[in-house]
Amino acid sequence: MDLFFHPSSIAVVGASTRKGGYHLVRNLLYGYEGTVYPVNPRYDSLEGLPCFPSLDAIPDPVDLAIVLVPAPAVPAVLEACARKGVKRVMIESAGFAEVGETGRAIQDHCLRIARESGIRIWGPNCMGLVDIPGKRFFTFMLPDVYEKGTIPGRISLIVQSGMLSAAFVADLMNGRGIGIGKVCSIGNKADVDECDLLRYLLEDRETDAVALYLESIPRGRLFAEITRSAIKPVVVLKGGKSTAGARAAMSHTSSLSGNSRLLEGVFQSSGIVPARDFHQMIDLARALSINGDLGPECRTAILTFSGGAGIVSCDLMEKSGLKVAQLSKVTREALADLFPEWMPAANPVDLYPAMELHGRLDTYDRAISIVLKDPNVDVLLIHYVSGLDAKSLDLPSLKKRADENGKRLIFWNLGLREPALAFQLQTQANRMQSHLELSRTVECLAAAARYGKKGPRKGPTEVKHPAFPVPNLGQFGRGELIWDEHESKRLLVRWGIPAVEERIVEDLSLLDRMVPEMGFPLVLKGLLPGEVHKTESGLIHVGLRDMGEARRICEALSRKMKGRGRILLQRQVRTDFELIAGYLKDAEFGPCVMFGLGGVTAELEPDVVFSLAPLSKEEAMELMDRIRGKRLLKGFRGMAPVDADLMAGFLVKLGNLGSVYPEIGQIDVNPVAVVEGVPVAVDANVIVETLESPGGKYS
Amino acid sequence: MDLFFHPSSIAVVGASTRKGGYHLVRNLLYGYEGTVYPVNPRYDSLEGLPCFPSLDAIPDPVDLAIVLVPAPAVPAVLEACARKGVKRVMIESAGFAEVGETGRAIQDHCLRIARESGIRIWGPNCMGLVDIPGKRFFTFMLPDVYEKGTIPGRISLIVQSGMLSAAFVADLMNGRGIGIGKVCSIGNKADVDECDLLRYLLEDRETDAVALYLESIPRGRLFAEITRSAIKPVVVLKGGKSTAGARAAMSHTSSLSGNSRLLEGVFQSSGIVPARDFHQMIDLARALSINGDLGPECRTAILTFSGGAGIVSCDLMEKSGLKVAQLSKVTREALADLFPEWMPAANPVDLYPAMELHGRLDTYDRAISIVLKDPNVDVLLIHYVSGLDAKSLDLPSLKKRADENGKRLIFWNLGLREPALAFQLQTQANRMQSHLELSRTVECLAAAARYGKKGPRKGPTEVKHPAFPVPNLGQFGRGELIWDEHESKRLLVRWGIPAVEERIVEDLSLLDRMVPEMGFPLVLKGLLPGEVHKTESGLIHVGLRDMGEARRICEALSRKMKGRGRILLQRQVRTDFELIAGYLKDAEFGPCVMFGLGGVTAELEPDVVFSLAPLSKEEAMELMDRIRGKRLLKGFRGMAPVDADLMAGFLVKLGNLGSVYPEIGQIDVNPVAVVEGVPVAVDANVIVETLESPGGKYS
Repeated sequence: MDLFFHPSSIAVVGASTRKGGYHLVRNLLYGYEGTVYPVNPRYDSLEGLPCFPSLDAIPDPVDLAIVLVPAPAVPAVLEACARKGVKRVMIESAGFAEVGETGRAIQDHCLRIARESGIRIWGPNCMGLVDIPGKRFFTFMLPDVYEKGTIPGRISLIVQSGMLSAAFVADLMNGRGIGIGKVCSIGNKADVDECDLLRYLLEDRETDAVALYLESIPRGRLFAEITRSAIKPVVVLKGGKSTAGARAAMSHTSSLSGNSRLLEGVFQSSGIVPARDFHQMIDLARALSINGDLGPECRTAILTFSGGAGIVSCDLMEKSGLKVAQLSKVTREALADLFPEWMPAANPVDLYPAMELHGRLDTYDRAISIVLKDPNVDVLLIHYVSGLDAKSLDLPSLKKRADENGKRLIFWNLGLREPALAFQLQTQANRMQSHLELSRTVECLAAAARYGKKGPRKGPTEVKHPAFPVPNLGQFGRGELIWDEHESKRLLVRWGIPAVEERIVEDLSLLDRMVPEMGFPLVLKGLLPGEVHKTESGLIHVGLRDMGEARRICEALSRKMKGRGRILLQRQVRTDFELIAGYLKDAEFGPCVMFGLGGVTAELEPDVVFSLAPLSKEEAMELMDRIRGKRLLKGFRGMAPVDADLMAGFLVKLGNLGSVYPEIGQIDVNPVAVVEGVPVAVDANVIVETLESPGGKYS
Repeated sequence: MDLFFHPSSIAVVGASTRKGGYHLVRNLLYGYEGTVYPVNPRYDSLEGLPCFPSLDAIPDPVDLAIVLVPAPAVPAVLEACARKGVKRVMIESAGFAEVGETGRAIQDHCLRIARESGIRIWGPNCMGLVDIPGKRFFTFMLPDVYEKGTIPGRISLIVQSGMLSAAFVADLMNGRGIGIGKVCSIGNKADVDECDLLRYLLEDRETDAVALYLESIPRGRLFAEITRSAIKPVVVLKGGKSTAGARAAMSHTSSLSGNSRLLEGVFQSSGIVPARDFHQMIDLARALSINGDLGPECRTAILTFSGGAGIVSCDLMEKSGLKVAQLSKVTREALADLFPEWMPAANPVDLYPAMELHGRLDTYDRAISIVLKDPNVDVLLIHYVSGLDAKSLDLPSLKKRADENGKRLIFWNLGLREPALAFQLQTQANRMQSHLELSRTVECLAAAARYGKKGPRKGPTEVKHPAFPVPNLGQFGRGELIWDEHESKRLLVRWGIPAVEERIVEDLSLLDRMVPEMGFPLVLKGLLPGEVHKTESGLIHVGLRDMGEARRICEALSRKMKGRGRILLQRQVRTDFELIAGYLKDAEFGPCVMFGLGGVTAELEPDVVFSLAPLSKEEAMELMDRIRGKRLLKGFRGMAPVDADLMAGFLVKLGNLGSVYPEIGQIDVNPVAVVEGVPVAVDANVIVETLESPGGKYS
């Protein structure tokens, strides 16, 4: 990848005197220090550089070719690159897969040439690369961006949408005074994709955090594995969530994965910070790059010029789960010296009365100095109005003192336009967070606190193969794609997942012996091939209390099913509450496990969470801790708590077994009954995607 | 109130050559056109005006006195005002109730003088009044605010916190280019409060919307009644929500009212738009003042320069419940003419490929013109980067064309700093929404759409007195403050609220006759005085199936209660699902009704909503429609729906009966069982606050 970022020489195929071909050359001349070779048979020279009729005509080696000729001409350019030994090609022209079949064919053709000759392609249909601190503009975007002044920073971006990267970078730097590192516009990502670039930027010494706008993550599993072990914050805005519901919903697990729940779960279990909007994404990345190591405690002192702003800060913090610090006695006494007599010193610290006595800047300086020494405080959230005084806060000195005391300073910065911008740039230069809106300030602080909870980074979890020999899948499922609940539970039980006691009524004449063995009350179910909605189809009868009832129901089910399917006799368990568990092989992210609350009312507002599978025991515990209604698991309203160890084991096994069999697409375990604390699979469905195993027919 | 806003003459008591007293005079001289009388015995003249030793020394009548002398001197000033006939006094000095008991005594003293002499007091401890378009600065705030340039607007503010109003107004106008109307800083609001000022501003022709920051709403009921019939948008940021939970929680209803649920409910039922942060409050007010009449449909076309930004817009809109418009065939064909051949015309409309062909501004103009004619579109959400072109969009012309077509234009405005500010000012001048962040743009649009659903404004709902004579409360409750469930349901039933069939077991010997009359299964409950947690105390026995069991339980309960309390025999109803209803007399907002989902799992994540009582039938329907799990009410998963008419009637009666008896503090009806669609009170608790009625002992 580094050759894309630091080539010694660049050929511009499609250099020109106008439009993109002109901007590209001009942009390269702005700051790039290597050699530039314009290529266009129509010119002898361009912008003072000799122009070559073709790549082949360039006498020296070329590290990178940037291509801006029309799509149909690009395969020939790639062939020239192959001949000349150019190993990196950035195709910025459009007209490829994004425009339909013809374009896709051209793109595939380019890809074939590249693969055969060891070329890596960036793009096509992209804005290329902008490296603000390195002054490298490998892009045809308008020179406005740097002509209006750049602000080098340490946040790098990977952006799938072309235009957005140019407009957005201009907006960030010039409009808001936000510093930027590298911006990678990846377009159709035919070859080089977010995984390649993320890996590079995570190693890049000039990048502290990576923000990504993505519409698809085809190598989602790899992406998640990269972020799991990343030591820099990764913030992702995923566009197109509303289409996630389009997945074919055969199982509860898959229908519940829609509405971006699966994505949220994968992000959470992979340490990815989700964003909901473009500017918020950058704010989060900035905050985490500065305060991502803050740790989860995050006890915050609020220093304000307004009682009202202090109160709203507390409201917002409480809502985000942040802790307002309890100031120490020493701090309160020292603050009391600053304040008029009648003013109690408490958090939030309302500085206004003290400002009346000592002036604004002195009050800030003295109050901050006092609170910086408080052992009960991790963060100072400071409300500051820029431009009211001739001078501003002495930020370098404040930062130094904060560092000495192991504290963080975060600013809500409001005030007059130019002074507020200057303040914003100053906080940035001193590596401190500052935001223009109070709620964004608190939101970013909360994200940093959550991020601090992540703990040490870890690689992917491996399947823990069971002690017993892995059973052949062909022994289960009766050759169906959608297994009935008995077959499904047979597989679960073989993997050590507890299920309700049950038997198939092979023969009605055996009923007289089976029923008393199991004990009342009982459940009888009719299992029809492919039927996953037994309740709605009237195939479930619960609460049977005597032999006669059992016999009657059996006969009725038998008639109803007309000789198809089977009848299942089940012990009725005394359930405290119901949970749901599931397994899903996602097209992007591969094996995932779901966990959540079961029962009818939980369907009104699903409370389910997802994680990548396989899971370690610890990850299963974390997963269980993520549902909103987790109080239910811990003994709610007199009900016994679920045995967390057993439930975690249940989920670990579910993840393992799903991951071991590539043929399994989905597993629903719904409900998981909690019986005196023990989770028991009551109903289950395994759905396989094929009846062939990779090695041949498995059944 | 108008005399506060438009006095012909103002006396400044505490005028001075420095600090606040100096700023006040200077600020008045900036734009106020009436006569200013500085009052201070230490000066002969101030800023070129003759200075008077006392109020009495002013020869002419004075409409308004602005007072900035120390608190202890203020009562004497008020006496002087009374002597001189000054009827409006704005006390801006601090040192009153906010500093403790001594200050409170001074404040009360001032209030007494004012009441006796017909003076209205504004403040104390406030920044007074700023009227930007009228150039009236009745405040001691720093002159920076207008010296740096003001931006007159039509949003007025009422702000409880002093410093916030000055800093915030400076930030809005100078920092963000947002226009402001009147700003009223109300401080301790000893006399003039948010109700007085809101009423004034709702009538003010120069105000289109009112935004309020409030920490308390002592006259909450009145406030809600004012907003209910208001024809201008009212946006409220309520500080100090986190303390709402401090209410003594005797009943479920009162404990569920915490966490600002009651406040949200009152706001919703009163047409108040809630805000969560200061800038967001202003953005909402601006949006509603422009597009509050938009109506709920709000079918939106998105015109963007970036596919990615279009996708994220859709995601955000879907999440906010907004509709992405389906463009008409005519529109799609006309857009196709603009686009390159391969580009399908769909919503979001990605203009980038067309910009390549026709240039940026032309493309915007042509595409907007096309979409403005689409009958399927109400709103055009336009993404625009300021500063990329020498010219900008022709906003007056666009606005004119939008008006002609009955459409609204809303802009997400990003780009270079100064052009973006210019664009922001231009949209404001042309009465169009524009925002710097996409999510805020969508949030404000969604707020406008919701606001449009409000329908015609209405005054307070009156209690509908029942056809039957209102029963005397003394006939119920057995002289207790916390009534047992039987007494509570007796009252409900008398008001026509259906309750489960039940009888007190007066004598165990009667059991043999009572039990068979009611039919099995049965419930037996022990009712102890003051006991509201019967389940936890083991006083409830359900599912009794024979006479012997009933007798045994009765005897056990009898022993357990040791002769106190009573035993209740109840028919066990076959419940489809459980709801909860409640009544609460709130200290600020008075009678309120609660409605929500019942059952144990609903306690994990309460799904309850509040409204002011009494309720009309229509309001009860609206209330029921506000719970998140409303699908349950409409027949969920094979269960019968609740009869909406009966349930609404239930809530109306509950609100009426609570409102009729001022002695009732709280009523819990929990659960309300839904039995074949009919809501039935199964358990209930009435809590009265006193055993005295206003007219004497009621029991």
